[in-house]
Amino acid sequence: MIRVGIVGASGLAGGELIRLATQHPELELTFLGGSSSAGRRPAELHPGLRLDLGLTVEPVPEDLSDRCDVVLLATPAPASAELAARLADQVPCVIDLSGAFRIRTPALHDRWYPNVPRTAELADRFVYGVPELVGDQLVGASLISLPGCFATAITLGLAPLVTALGLNLKNVVVDGKTGSSGGGLQLRTADLHPLRNGAIAPYAPAGHRHAAEVRDFLERSKPGGIEALSMSAYGVSHVRGLMASSYVFTDDEVDARTLHRAYLRFYKEHPFVRVRRHNETLIPVPDPQAVLGSNFCDVTVLHDEEGGRIVVLSALDNMVKGAAGQAVQALNIRFGLPVETGLTMQPVMPA
Amino acid sequence: MIRVGIVGASGLAGGELIRLATQHPELELTFLGGSSSAGRRPAELHPGLRLDLGLTVEPVPEDLSDRCDVVLLATPAPASAELAARLADQVPCVIDLSGAFRIRTPALHDRWYPNVPRTAELADRFVYGVPELVGDQLVGASLISLPGCFATAITLGLAPLVTALGLNLKNVVVDGKTGSSGGGLQLRTADLHPLRNGAIAPYAPAGHRHAAEVRDFLERSKPGGIEALSMSAYGVSHVRGLMASSYVFTDDEVDARTLHRAYLRFYKEHPFVRVRRHNETLIPVPDPQAVLGSNFCDVTVLHDEEGGRIVVLSALDNMVKGAAGQAVQALNIRFGLPVETGLTMQPVMPA
Amino acid sequence: MIRVGIVGASGLAGGELIRLATQHPELELTFLGGSSSAGRRPAELHPGLRLDLGLTVEPVPEDLSDRCDVVLLATPAPASAELAARLADQVPCVIDLSGAFRIRTPALHDRWYPNVPRTAELADRFVYGVPELVGDQLVGASLISLPGCFATAITLGLAPLVTALGLNLKNVVVDGKTGSSGGGLQLRTADLHPLRNGAIAPYAPAGHRHAAEVRDFLERSKPGGIEALSMSAYGVSHVRGLMASSYVFTDDEVDARTLHRAYLRFYKEHPFVRVRRHNETLIPVPDPQAVLGSNFCDVTVLHDEEGGRIVVLSALDNMVKGAAGQAVQALNIRFGLPVETGLTMQPVMPA
Amino acid sequence: MIRVGIVGASGLAGGELIRLATQHPELELTFLGGSSSAGRRPAELHPGLRLDLGLTVEPVPEDLSDRCDVVLLATPAPASAELAARLADQVPCVIDLSGAFRIRTPALHDRWYPNVPRTAELADRFVYGVPELVGDQLVGASLISLPGCFATAITLGLAPLVTALGLNLKNVVVDGKTGSSGGGLQLRTADLHPLRNGAIAPYAPAGHRHAAEVRDFLERSKPGGIEALSMSAYGVSHVRGLMASSYVFTDDEVDARTLHRAYLRFYKEHPFVRVRRHNETLIPVPDPQAVLGSNFCDVTVLHDEEGGRIVVLSALDNMVKGAAGQAVQALNIRFGLPVETGLTMQPVMPA
Repeated sequence: MIRVGIVGASGLAGGELIRLATQHPELELTFLGGSSSAGRRPAELHPGLRLDLGLTVEPVPEDLSDRCDVVLLATPAPASAELAARLADQVPCVIDLSGAFRIRTPALHDRWYPNVPRTAELADRFVYGVPELVGDQLVGASLISLPGCFATAITLGLAPLVTALGLNLKNVVVDGKTGSSGGGLQLRTADLHPLRNGAIAPYAPAGHRHAAEVRDFLERSKPGGIEALSMSAYGVSHVRGLMASSYVFTDDEVDARTLHRAYLRFYKEHPFVRVRRHNETLIPVPDPQAVLGSNFCDVTVLHDEEGGRIVVLSALDNMVKGAAGQAVQALNIRFGLPVETGLTMQPVMPA
Repeated sequence: MIRVGIVGASGLAGGELIRLATQHPELELTFLGGSSSAGRRPAELHPGLRLDLGLTVEPVPEDLSDRCDVVLLATPAPASAELAARLADQVPCVIDLSGAFRIRTPALHDRWYPNVPRTAELADRFVYGVPELVGDQLVGASLISLPGCFATAITLGLAPLVTALGLNLKNVVVDGKTGSSGGGLQLRTADLHPLRNGAIAPYAPAGHRHAAEVRDFLERSKPGGIEALSMSAYGVSHVRGLMASSYVFTDDEVDARTLHRAYLRFYKEHPFVRVRRHNETLIPVPDPQAVLGSNFCDVTVLHDEEGGRIVVLSALDNMVKGAAGQAVQALNIRFGLPVETGLTMQPVMPA
Repeated sequence: MIRVGIVGASGLAGGELIRLATQHPELELTFLGGSSSAGRRPAELHPGLRLDLGLTVEPVPEDLSDRCDVVLLATPAPASAELAARLADQVPCVIDLSGAFRIRTPALHDRWYPNVPRTAELADRFVYGVPELVGDQLVGASLISLPGCFATAITLGLAPLVTALGLNLKNVVVDGKTGSSGGGLQLRTADLHPLRNGAIAPYAPAGHRHAAEVRDFLERSKPGGIEALSMSAYGVSHVRGLMASSYVFTDDEVDARTLHRAYLRFYKEHPFVRVRRHNETLIPVPDPQAVLGSNFCDVTVLHDEEGGRIVVLSALDNMVKGAAGQAVQALNIRFGLPVETGLTMQPVMPA
Repeated sequence: MIRVGIVGASGLAGGELIRLATQHPELELTFLGGSSSAGRRPAELHPGLRLDLGLTVEPVPEDLSDRCDVVLLATPAPASAELAARLADQVPCVIDLSGAFRIRTPALHDRWYPNVPRTAELADRFVYGVPELVGDQLVGASLISLPGCFATAITLGLAPLVTALGLNLKNVVVDGKTGSSGGGLQLRTADLHPLRNGAIAPYAPAGHRHAAEVRDFLERSKPGGIEALSMSAYGVSHVRGLMASSYVFTDDEVDARTLHRAYLRFYKEHPFVRVRRHNETLIPVPDPQAVLGSNFCDVTVLHDEEGGRIVVLSALDNMVKGAAGQAVQALNIRFGLPVETGLTMQPVMPA
């Protein structure tokens, strides 16, 4: 059994990590860390969790080296930056779910995470990337930084175009739509149910840091592959799940059939990415409700001939494939387990 | 492996049975039956299901004896009545999720299911009841009729009062609140999203057949234990999950502490029933969102001293503990498997 | 023009009062009071409001006598108690929307509003009651206390039974279901969208102060008419609108036709109460979505013969007929205007 | 009083027209037309409507000339094409809410409305356009075709760029998000509440006819002003209201301040368009919930410097400003009434 510690136990991602850890046959939950929630049992904080988990939340102690083989950080970025620096030498593996170590380029990091100081030295030791695209690098890694939820969806959507098809993307316009769980459980008036329900809330209409993260990563994968990428993000009126729509303009020749086949081929060996036709079921897909609670990312690629563009739609559960599930997926690869271990739950739909 | 057939594959309960069957380590899905959906693949009908299930839906053939060890009927009651009669002699076990065989008393059955003809002979061969309360009877049973979703919640909520505490319930008033998945996928204008969202729809304000079912069962368990029971049911503005509120009037002496302890004791050995205190977490419980996607039924018992009554709240996922999950639970008991086999998924919350 | 002041401008009821005041042909909004929101313009606090209202929110000054003919208090009960005491001698009319002066019986008030000190002397000067039932008393009244949202629905539902039909109600069990706007905009984790959406939240499962308010009022109208009344309340997954279900047990003889006719007759002259048959439209009614944004209260009375009870369903918009609209209705009567003045907006449905 | 007939009384737009007509001081509802709903009273079809409207729905008679001064067509496009041809010579004014006469260019019309035959002769007699942009043309017009809901939002969003600022728009990418009321009340499985709630449904991911409509109109206003325009549309998880996001790429020099001021100036005399700053209230705006039930269209223009684009967000209630309210607005102008007559209702928020 792999001994797992989770820090940030009171947040939504923390709760989801606990859920997945308790369903995982090879993980033993040995530590739950938190400050404001210290002393609480998990089911007090997350009402769905089983009542008989033996643990209570503790402040993170000076040393976790004898208690955990891996520590998952579901903490805000500033806390993650600090904790990662400390834990890096204590435990074999630290997996950070925050944005603290996602952007490699220092100037870009500072632009989007001005309140998250970190050393480039530490940052460079982190393996970053969607597991489907950086799998080998994760094997045995000691420091892992997971992509953001939107960044995961966008990157999985664009990678086949850039990498497999080798297209030159002149302009990519991303429109992201997410449920309210994306905002966590901080107390903000705008996130109270009366004001958030029924909303189409343009919370990041003219730029989003996940777009910077995507470019930073894809630029390293294939320099110059994307000339311009902009993003706007909206909160819509449900709780869990997101859709990233990438509108791609290229001068290269494309057609619908080639695109779809390239995607199928690209993700053939990757069980969590489902390449789907838009009309293959009784609702149009992808739709995040069709992946709810699971680690799937559904991707559809379309050719809008009249509009002169490629439309890539990626849908995932922001709390699973966009956070906790992807963490477990990375952990599985890191520790040499089959990638689907503990992640075989199917989507709960309708919900 | 136990070979399972599912009839009624295109409905919501059918889809949920497929989901649970694919997650169950001891089940092999060998047959999917349906009429209107014949020829379709499961993921066409239920967009969340994994794409690589080999099966397609077929019309139910004359004989299923060499293909299934157990057949689950997720069909409308009239179809179930007919299919059960035929399949009873073909396969070792038939589990019916419809209302066809729930009410034992013939007159009461005819009152609530006037369009479901059945012979009393066949009906009497069925084992009926919530698995927690009739467990032994299910072992090796050849015909099993599962309780309705509300009936499950109400019965689990009242059983400790009637059976363990031996109270005489003079009047029980049940108010049931359910999400839209309770109504299935039939095409009715009132169930279209614009008219159903935001609704509090009194669809059965002055009587519900699940109340008849509860009385019929509890009367057999303890004759005279409940003098009067009435029920009203409402559709509220979410999709999955229900709450049954039972307001119980008795002349017997009760107090909050005794009640809670009696419930804890009663369900001690039953992992799917969680007896909870109303304030034990950051939201009031029970709340169906805290059991979403799982086979749990959360129960809370309260003593309203000023109101002179006992308040019992039971919440469950109508598609899992109220239908497909309970079917698997019964199947596990029937075939001698540990009761939690394939049912260890934790609630997906928030969703 | 009647000069109106509104205190508590930042809350939901305050915002709704501003909305209705700007639509009212005989009202001139002359004062907006608030403490935390002082200095803000109404549209900053309530994004839907027209942008060109000239006023900004101010702290309540020592004296409002020269600025307002009527002051509407949309403040928490403790603040209302204090403000009413002060304003009673300054302005011709004070209308309080809080619970500070609703319960007449001192002991009962202290039981349910322990933190709201008031003098019985001041309390006794308030006219309390649903306008349909106490209309004459409101004419020229200087102090008016409006019923709670649930109390309005329940009282309008029960009044014809008690008053017109003269039934003796042996036991009334009330189940209340409300949207999230009922809880206002206070910052509570449980009211954040991720935890409140999809919920059936039993926030007052074993007693609610609106039940005490109803009994206190009906007992004065017809002593002994109701022997027992208990209530439970739930938050369900929408924003605006509530349903009160009153399950009434009586030994008196009743039948469906007599009941419906008595209700029709009782509310014949009252344009805001619509007595409806359960099946008169394509969705079952009453349903709060069918009164959204309007001052209507829809009422349906049913006879559940098998259950031995009368079922009364009342639906209203908690922010209009349950708060701001009822305030304007009372104001209209108070100042001798036709009762529908400024309240002719029809329900916005679907929404 | 202007005598109004409404055809298509059973649909959502028809119901909304009835709502607005009953609130309008200068309109007298004299005819309700429908086929499947003939014989029904309005409140049977639309549960919110007042119960005392004297009319019932009738089949459209041969001649309406003596009953109506204006007929509003809330019918499907094929029916509108037929009815308009007939009514054009019977009544002083016909206002069509369908897409039958929106696109002027015949080839483009046939591309997007292949099943809507019409003569170019009749089509050319229609005045088309958002009232704010074609006001004068509506005065005294006998045939009026109203823009689609998305087309209204997009056109109001882009017009100041093209017309007032005279920018050359090289590429416009529109992402539209709408509630379920946009799809009407047709019986489709995908629109049942269980499958539609919680969805992000890409129902028109690679092209939408409202985009063709916008280009067709703007091209006539300023030929060559927009080089390319593409659109994708999504259904999200609420009922009423839409947001159109227009991502605009231009080589012309722009800055945030100039943009905002130009919009303010452009809509200065137009009370239904509210130009808003993104952060001017406690929720980000525009958001369709802030215009619910009203005839407002909220518009915000932003400069995304890093993304090298202009972001224009337009939010409106698709049933009011996107349909019935805009119809009344056009009617007011047509008949010389003040434009706000009968349209002064403020947004119902939160809902």
